[in-house]
Amino acid sequence: MKVGTYFSENSKAAFKNDPPGAWMPNLPDGCIRLSSGYPDPALIPAEEIKAAVARLLDEEHDLPLHYLGSPRVTRLKQQIQKRLAERGVFVSEEQLLITSGACQAIDLIARILLDDQAVVAVESPTYMEALEIFQNYTKQIISIPIDGQGIRTDRLKEMLVERKRNGLALPRFLYTIPTYQNPTGTTTSTERRKHLLELSSEFDFLILEDDAYGELSFDKNPPPIKSFDECGRVLHVGSLSKVVAPGMRIGWIAGDSEFIKASEWFKKDLDHPFSQSTMAVYLENTNFEKRLHLLKDVYRAKCAVLLRAMEQFLPDPVSWYVPAGGYFVWVRIPGVDTSELLPQALAEGVSYVPGKYFFLNQSDGTEFLRLSFSYANEKEIIDGIQRLGRVIAPFLNGLPDPEVNDTNAPTP
Amino acid sequence: MKVGTYFSENSKAAFKNDPPGAWMPNLPDGCIRLSSGYPDPALIPAEEIKAAVARLLDEEHDLPLHYLGSPRVTRLKQQIQKRLAERGVFVSEEQLLITSGACQAIDLIARILLDDQAVVAVESPTYMEALEIFQNYTKQIISIPIDGQGIRTDRLKEMLVERKRNGLALPRFLYTIPTYQNPTGTTTSTERRKHLLELSSEFDFLILEDDAYGELSFDKNPPPIKSFDECGRVLHVGSLSKVVAPGMRIGWIAGDSEFIKASEWFKKDLDHPFSQSTMAVYLENTNFEKRLHLLKDVYRAKCAVLLRAMEQFLPDPVSWYVPAGGYFVWVRIPGVDTSELLPQALAEGVSYVPGKYFFLNQSDGTEFLRLSFSYANEKEIIDGIQRLGRVIAPFLNGLPDPEVNDTNAPTP
Repeated sequence: MKVGTYFSENSKAAFKNDPPGAWMPNLPDGCIRLSSGYPDPALIPAEEIKAAVARLLDEEHDLPLHYLGSPRVTRLKQQIQKRLAERGVFVSEEQLLITSGACQAIDLIARILLDDQAVVAVESPTYMEALEIFQNYTKQIISIPIDGQGIRTDRLKEMLVERKRNGLALPRFLYTIPTYQNPTGTTTSTERRKHLLELSSEFDFLILEDDAYGELSFDKNPPPIKSFDECGRVLHVGSLSKVVAPGMRIGWIAGDSEFIKASEWFKKDLDHPFSQSTMAVYLENTNFEKRLHLLKDVYRAKCAVLLRAMEQFLPDPVSWYVPAGGYFVWVRIPGVDTSELLPQALAEGVSYVPGKYFFLNQSDGTEFLRLSFSYANEKEIIDGIQRLGRVIAPFLNGLPDPEVNDTNAPTP
Repeated sequence: MKVGTYFSENSKAAFKNDPPGAWMPNLPDGCIRLSSGYPDPALIPAEEIKAAVARLLDEEHDLPLHYLGSPRVTRLKQQIQKRLAERGVFVSEEQLLITSGACQAIDLIARILLDDQAVVAVESPTYMEALEIFQNYTKQIISIPIDGQGIRTDRLKEMLVERKRNGLALPRFLYTIPTYQNPTGTTTSTERRKHLLELSSEFDFLILEDDAYGELSFDKNPPPIKSFDECGRVLHVGSLSKVVAPGMRIGWIAGDSEFIKASEWFKKDLDHPFSQSTMAVYLENTNFEKRLHLLKDVYRAKCAVLLRAMEQFLPDPVSWYVPAGGYFVWVRIPGVDTSELLPQALAEGVSYVPGKYFFLNQSDGTEFLRLSFSYANEKEIIDGIQRLGRVIAPFLNGLPDPEVNDTNAPTP
């Protein structure tokens, strides 16, 4: 019996795509993980979570272990509302849905808005898991390039004008990570954020703002696009994965109340009372501003260590974009296919994510790779970049084109 | 701006259905909850979960709080494999997916198998949340009646033969709850379980076996349909919600490895490491057979209390089916619309779920209601049934047909 013959047409089409997680390198033991977009292990508040569970169950007994009943599930929403308000995003309880991480939020939004006739626009490069998700729904994905100021809204406008002129469907939504983008680390300028909103109104599409890294500035957090949104065009997706702990699976959608209500039709894992109410207790007992300061200090320092190591140990033609926050540095090695380089790097004991997975057209990404400074410690980062330098050298020596010597930042 | 105009065609169709949870009564303060299919609060192992979290985080520190990393996420799978094996269901790690409860499992299966051209067969009545889920995907749902021996496989066969003769699409799968069915409490006989498998092979459909109550026999648990499945036609869905705690959101799909692999394309909430590894520690430290004995003793006793109270306090024409396990008793009040009765019951301080929500054609269910003996304690159960009796009496007195005096069990 071949179970695949029973699949729906949509499923059959989806299964022709790469399997989920194809981008994840198979790590050998002891490998230095510059591929992992995980928080720093030392910043995971394991003791505080333990205390939060003890307090929760002492106070509420069985309540958080039922389907419904813990008042703290509601309080978590209020806490997230409050945090959003501090960033200029004012939403009511009806405009907020707690999800199991940002990925589920993106998937729910795609599920509600997309069918195989729908068009969606994305930045190029963009978050590989979002690409995986959108490809489950439609083949009509349009890439808009980004540069050091974030998404090229001029190019977006050109595309919109041209499609409109030719009578083609306009995007139902644009997916953007405006702050400390995954994978490039770039941040969209305030001017472009406002331009995006103007275009969304003029050409009548929604904006899916993925703000997973939005609080992890090395200096001052830029205001989310949602904070400028006056007519409810922005679906703001956030997460506590990068600032507390991904294993708790807490994310959200903040947006139009009709949309939030609609999400309930499809969010069939229901609320997660145990992890949601544990998180509520954790937040009650945490000075979150102080915690964010600590996170920023740690990641700023680790990013600086990574950049210094790259300057010291990576050969000349390698270039990168210097981020102002987040978890990632985006690297270009001219003339080198980073997928071919990866097995050597893993054999040397260091991992990264090849650039191709962040592009709809994978061949656009061959020369790029994503490094993460979030998970490895400072010593590992230095050691990892030394190893990477050793691995890159012979690839560069084997280059057919000896002129390659571009020390500019990559057009990220 | 009307966000609904951006929805996909499939979403627009789904939003014409009743909103999720429409069946859930709005409980006044202090209401006796005979509507809630929740475990007994005294059986929720809150202290043990607290201890499990403490042990987990002491031993594994940050690991269960990352995306991946806790060895116990894998161990939970092994523990569930072991429990399934004890019931005659032998699956490999590749044939098992941990989900966020049984509902997510059902939704994933529907998502992979159904499109708006697909036909699905369900028992009538059946689990209202499953009906909600299937209606998100297709309008082509076929109801097969059940009786005291479970699903009428003769009627299923008639339907299949007739559709085949007329060149109509056959169901892609049949959804069944063979053991202590929700809402009727009925159990499908072994003979019919085997007949179902024969039909699935002859008419080439899959079986979605929802086994959420399968271990909650008052006596001996019947073998799951999956235990007779030799060619991989059964997707077995289970859950720890009814035997441990629903707030932990742990369910599963056990079935064909190709299907399990396919599920990963759409399960975008990812694993839930914190709750899954906590559950693994809890199971490590629990004598589960002993726990099941306790659960059976408690629920057997509470069911007996409910049935005695019903005999004592419900007027003559009311009839019900006596279950051999599970959480529910299915009741018929001839000539009374239980949706109209509900506001009176709630005003009197007792809740139930009106029968109509368990039927595709809601008018088939007007005379029925579902009582749960799982959540309320024995005193509340007796009190609740007294209240219900008081509420029913005037409705029966107002009956146009004085002959109604049917003490037979309902054809459930």
